[in-house]
Amino acid sequence: MNPFNDEYFMKQALVEARAAASEGEVPVGAVIVCNNQIIARAHNQTECLNDVTAHAEMLAITAAAGVLGAKYLTNCSLYVTVEPCIMCAGAIGWAQLSTIVYGASDDKRGFSKFAPQAFHPKAIIKKGILEKECAEEMQRFFKQRR
Amino acid sequence: MNPFNDEYFMKQALVEARAAASEGEVPVGAVIVCNNQIIARAHNQTECLNDVTAHAEMLAITAAAGVLGAKYLTNCSLYVTVEPCIMCAGAIGWAQLSTIVYGASDDKRGFSKFAPQAFHPKAIIKKGILEKECAEEMQRFFKQRR
Repeated sequence: MNPFNDEYFMKQALVEARAAASEGEVPVGAVIVCNNQIIARAHNQTECLNDVTAHAEMLAITAAAGVLGAKYLTNCSLYVTVEPCIMCAGAIGWAQLSTIVYGASDDKRGFSKFAPQAFHPKAIIKKGILEKECAEEMQRFFKQRR
Repeated sequence: MNPFNDEYFMKQALVEARAAASEGEVPVGAVIVCNNQIIARAHNQTECLNDVTAHAEMLAITAAAGVLGAKYLTNCSLYVTVEPCIMCAGAIGWAQLSTIVYGASDDKRGFSKFAPQAFHPKAIIKKGILEKECAEEMQRFFKQRR
C-alpha cells in the first residue's frame, strides 16, 4: 500500500489551509507534488500581502517553478482544499499541471462553472478528496466572521 | 479636449509592451489608472521571472494594490495591449477593476471566449483601442521567433 496517496497530500494541503485560518485568511491551502514529493506548499495570503492575486494555488505555482527551475509544471499534481477560481484555473492551465485534485467544490467562484476549459486538455481532474474536512474549514472560518 | 483619453493610456501600455519585446518577452503591456493618473505600469515577465503567472495585468494589479494600500481597485481602469487571458480576467474580477480597456483581441486565449463572466458585473469593457498597433507588436515578435 502506497501511503503517499491523494488523501495524504490533501491532508498536507489542509495543514496549509489551517495555517491560513490561524492568520485570519480565508482557509485555502495547496501543495504541488512531483514524483511523490511535495515541492511547494502555500496558503491563501490575500490579506497579509494585500493582494487579490495571492491565492494558495498562485503562490504554490510560483514556488514550484522556482524549485524546478522550470516554468511548466508538466507531470506535477496540484492538491488544493477548495475548487480553484477562474484566476487560479487559468494559471493552472498556463503551468500545464497534469493533475488537479481538489476537496470542496465552490459553486459561486469555481472554475467548473465559469471557466470549464481552463486546464490543459489532457489534465486529470479529481474532486471530493477529503471534501468534508476541506468544506468544514471554510464553514468554520466564515461562521466565526459573521 | 482631454489629452488623457483612452488612446493616451493605451500608448503608455504600448510602451510597456515594447519594453517586454526588447527583453525577449511576449509583448503585452498594461497600466492601471486612477483619477486620470497612472498608478502602476507593468509588462509581461514570464521568461525573466520563470513564472507563468507573471503576466502584465497580474504584475500591474499587485503593484497598484501596493500603491493604493488597498486590495480592491474599484474606480480604477486597466489598459492592456492584448485581451486578458482566463487567469488575468479572474484577477481583474477579484480586484473589482471598474473599467477594462484592451487593444488587440486574442481568439485563442482571451477571456471573452473562455471566461466571459470573469469581471465584476458592472465593469465596463472597451476593446479595439489602438488595436492595430497592439496587434502589430505581437505579430512582429512571433514573426521574429519563427
